[in-house]
Formats: sequence, C-alpha cells, structure tokens
Amino acid sequence: MCELFGMSANVPTDICFSFAGLIRRAGATGRHTDGFGVAFHDGDGCRLFHDPAPGAHSPLAAFLRTQPIKSRIALAHIRRANRGRVAVANTHPFQRELWGRWWVFAHNGQLKGVKRWPTAHYAPVGTTDSEHAFCWLLGELRSSFARMPAERTLCRAVDALCRRLDALGTFNALLSDGTRLYAHCSNRLAWLTRRAPFGRARLLDDDMQVDFAAETTPDDVVSVFATRPLTGDEAWQSMARGSLVVFRDGERIDFDRHDRSRPAPPSKAHARLSA
Amino acid sequence: MCELFGMSANVPTDICFSFAGLIRRAGATGRHTDGFGVAFHDGDGCRLFHDPAPGAHSPLAAFLRTQPIKSRIALAHIRRANRGRVAVANTHPFQRELWGRWWVFAHNGQLKGVKRWPTAHYAPVGTTDSEHAFCWLLGELRSSFARMPAERTLCRAVDALCRRLDALGTFNALLSDGTRLYAHCSNRLAWLTRRAPFGRARLLDDDMQVDFAAETTPDDVVSVFATRPLTGDEAWQSMARGSLVVFRDGERIDFDRHDRSRPAPPSKAHARLSA
Repeated sequence: MCELFGMSANVPTDICFSFAGLIRRAGATGRHTDGFGVAFHDGDGCRLFHDPAPGAHSPLAAFLRTQPIKSRIALAHIRRANRGRVAVANTHPFQRELWGRWWVFAHNGQLKGVKRWPTAHYAPVGTTDSEHAFCWLLGELRSSFARMPAERTLCRAVDALCRRLDALGTFNALLSDGTRLYAHCSNRLAWLTRRAPFGRARLLDDDMQVDFAAETTPDDVVSVFATRPLTGDEAWQSMARGSLVVFRDGERIDFDRHDRSRPAPPSKAHARLSA
Repeated sequence: MCELFGMSANVPTDICFSFAGLIRRAGATGRHTDGFGVAFHDGDGCRLFHDPAPGAHSPLAAFLRTQPIKSRIALAHIRRANRGRVAVANTHPFQRELWGRWWVFAHNGQLKGVKRWPTAHYAPVGTTDSEHAFCWLLGELRSSFARMPAERTLCRAVDALCRRLDALGTFNALLSDGTRLYAHCSNRLAWLTRRAPFGRARLLDDDMQVDFAAETTPDDVVSVFATRPLTGDEAWQSMARGSLVVFRDGERIDFDRHDRSRPAPPSKAHARLSA
C-alpha cells in the first residue's frame, strides 16, 4: 500500500508543511520506502520530482521539504511496492498530456486484471497496474471527447471511469488536469479545507507546528487530501467508500453525481460486468 | 538562443561536472536566464527537473550540481526565450510517451511557421515553436510506425523529419528515446567522446577541473554534446551543418544516412516544399 497527498488552493500555495509529515512515513514513521514523487502544477506547466529512493532519507526530499514551490494543485505519493519493481518508471505520480494539458495521477491500491484493459492512445512505460489504469482512463476520455468538455460533463465522465476501476479492487486515487483535483476513495482517503479564520496545526509524524494565520490572507482557501490525516488537531473528513469529489481553487465542485443521494457505492459485481 | 547539453554513455554516469559549467552560462558567464531543465533517463523511466528561474542562481540547479544522478542518457537546456514567455510550460526539455517509451527533446533555434504544421497525437502544452516541433515529430513517427521499428529504420525516419524542421529555420536539437541520443545540427553543436586513456579537463566557465581517470573504469565510453564546448583542453568536434548523428551507449551508430557522403545539406527550398 502507498500513501497519497493532494492539494487544491485558490492561490499558489506551498506544501512544505504537509510534505514534511508525509515524507516521514517513507522510512521513519512508516514503511513506504519504495520511492516517492511530487507534482506541482504551475500555470499550464507541471513540475514533477521523482526519486526511487526511500523518501525519509532522500536528498531530493530534504530539498523539497525546504523549497516553498508554490502551486494551486499539487500531488504527492510515497510508495510501498506491491506491483512493479522499485524503479523510476514505476514511481508515482504518473503524467500524460491530454487536450494540451498535463494530467497527473497517483494511486493507492491494487486493480486485479486492469492490465488486460486496452490502452490505445497512452502506453504504460513501467509495469504498475496504477500506470496502466491511468493510461486506460485518459484513453477513454480522449476517445469520448475530441476536446475538453464542459466541467460538469468532464467530472461525470471521470466519475464513471473511476467506478469501473474501483470495481477491480482498491482505487484510492488522486487525479489532476491542472485546474481540477479529482479524489476517488475506495476505502481510505481523508480531506479538509482550511479557510479563515485560520488556526494552528501540528504534524502527527514530526515535531512541527504551523500557524496558518501567519502564512495566509483571509481570502485563501486550501483543501488537502491524504490517505491518513497528517495533523492531529484539525477536523479531517473521511471520504465515503466509492465516492469521487472534485475540487477547483480549493472549493468542492458540485457536478451532480448521479448517485450522490444514495449511501452505497455501486455493487462491484455489477460494475465488473460493465467493464 | 538557448544552449543544449547531452550525454550518451555505456555505464550510468553523472553530469555534475558538465552541468556545473553549463549552468554558469545561465546568468553568470552567459545570459540564458529564462529557465533551465535537465532530463535523466533511468532504465525505462525518466526524471525531469525544470525551473523557470535563472539557473545560475537557482536552488534547484545548486542541488543538481552536487547530486551525482547517474544516467546513460541525459539532456539539459538553458533557455533564453525568443518564442513563448518564461514559464514552466515553456521550459525544455519537453517530454512525451511514444511506444511505451519516454522521448525527451530540447531545441535551440527558431522554426518559422512550424505552428501551422498539424499535431494529431500530441498537443503542445506551452507556446514555444520547439514544443510544437517535438509534438509534430513524434506524431509523424507514431503515424508511420505502429510500434518501434528497427534501429536503422528509426534513425533514418528521425533524420528525414529533422531535415524538414531544419528547412524552417534553425534546428539545433537533442532528442532521446531512452536508448539513443539523436543530435541534429543546423549551425552550432559540438561533441566529443571520452574513453580510455582518460585525461583531465577544465571547465571554460568555472574554476573546476576533473581527472576522468579517477572517476571511470577503462571500459567506460561517454559522449557529450554542447552548443559551445564546455572544456578548453579537449578536442571538441563541430558538427556539420544539416547533419544528424545518433549515439547509443556512448558510441556513434552508423545508420547509413542517405547523404552522408555528400558535403552539403539538402536545399532548404526543396525541403520546404516537402513539408
């Protein structure tokens, strides 16, 4: 299993505080020692940093922990390999271009049989089921829409594809298109939104505290996602099983998810048939 | 104008020495202050580092200068913007996946009218003519070959596409597919191969010297490319105008370039017609 981190904000925001906690789980407070990666969307561009080495002891991680690289969407992943050997090619987040935009993806879980699903436009470079799932998902979007559709249409399409992947096993995943952050929960993903009045927070994995009031302006809105809460004194919200939420500029988008009033996710047996 | 650096080696080799010289030209000994990027192929994977800040004063550049990231193919680029504003999306090297491989590209020059050329499979994310040319080139390869062809066929195809780009202006470019490094010269690109017996070299842009004999084994072969020679005491070879050379494992590949016995490149007028 791996751990995910994501951020969506309405102003360029660094992730130094969260990353300091997350990366401790990559060999100090946790055993996710099979590489890590961070993606920072920056305008239309995207900067990715990958290291197949254990994050807790990586010079690159130490560098990133102290570099306030500001972004409105960032994703990070610390890996504990189950499928695919430890290698740069298997290190999340993965990245591909669709509709002239950078899409970035990180996944926690296993997807049985996904490698039999066809990937026409995007071929995996590494050997993880995660990258294969990402290539399939983007290929399906590309086949369905010649150019980027309206936001609500796009969100629903991503939702439908995530459900199909979810039916194969465990699909806790973060996906971004440079504007929106999509978070799908199979069984473990939590989030919270920080906004005024800002308070203080302390990391669970390191002796580090931040006073967000001193770091922000009253209009800032920053939502963060993590496999397990990173701080102990904030109200993290666990996502419902089988749910997708989409954030833009730190705020949740209402895309009228078809089953949002229903408490249970679609039956896996049914969804498996539709795949 | 920008400056390029490339390396092809038969053993994983770091580029700290060369990069230390190159990055000085990004604000200290040169004016290429509009961002820089480095790509390190690592097995099937590829690690890219981009920074839109001036390299000579960039914390990321300082980090990379001291990190012996070993690779058999590496590319670097320091930018002086002419087309496309200073932004991550416009920072070379550019990267796309083709045939399940990472292809990486960096360019020096201008290509008049290239943005009118169609790019079906790969869409530019930024606004440079360089990225557009790269997307076009990969799209042409993809259209011509459903999977990777034999090496000689591939080299000839890349050669033909480079000539078409060259006809639009200035196309000094480095391209890699993870196995091969392709270097095309319009008017300025130099290279040399280091092999036993290894000697010493001193950077032109910094007070730094290296004794390659102490850093290598007798079987190592390392070829490096640069817009302008990086060292003063080695025999850099200027590439001929309109030529393409391809290297694998540090050694030049003979792909029987159609005109290799002819001294002059194809006429630009003719090539423009074929585009």
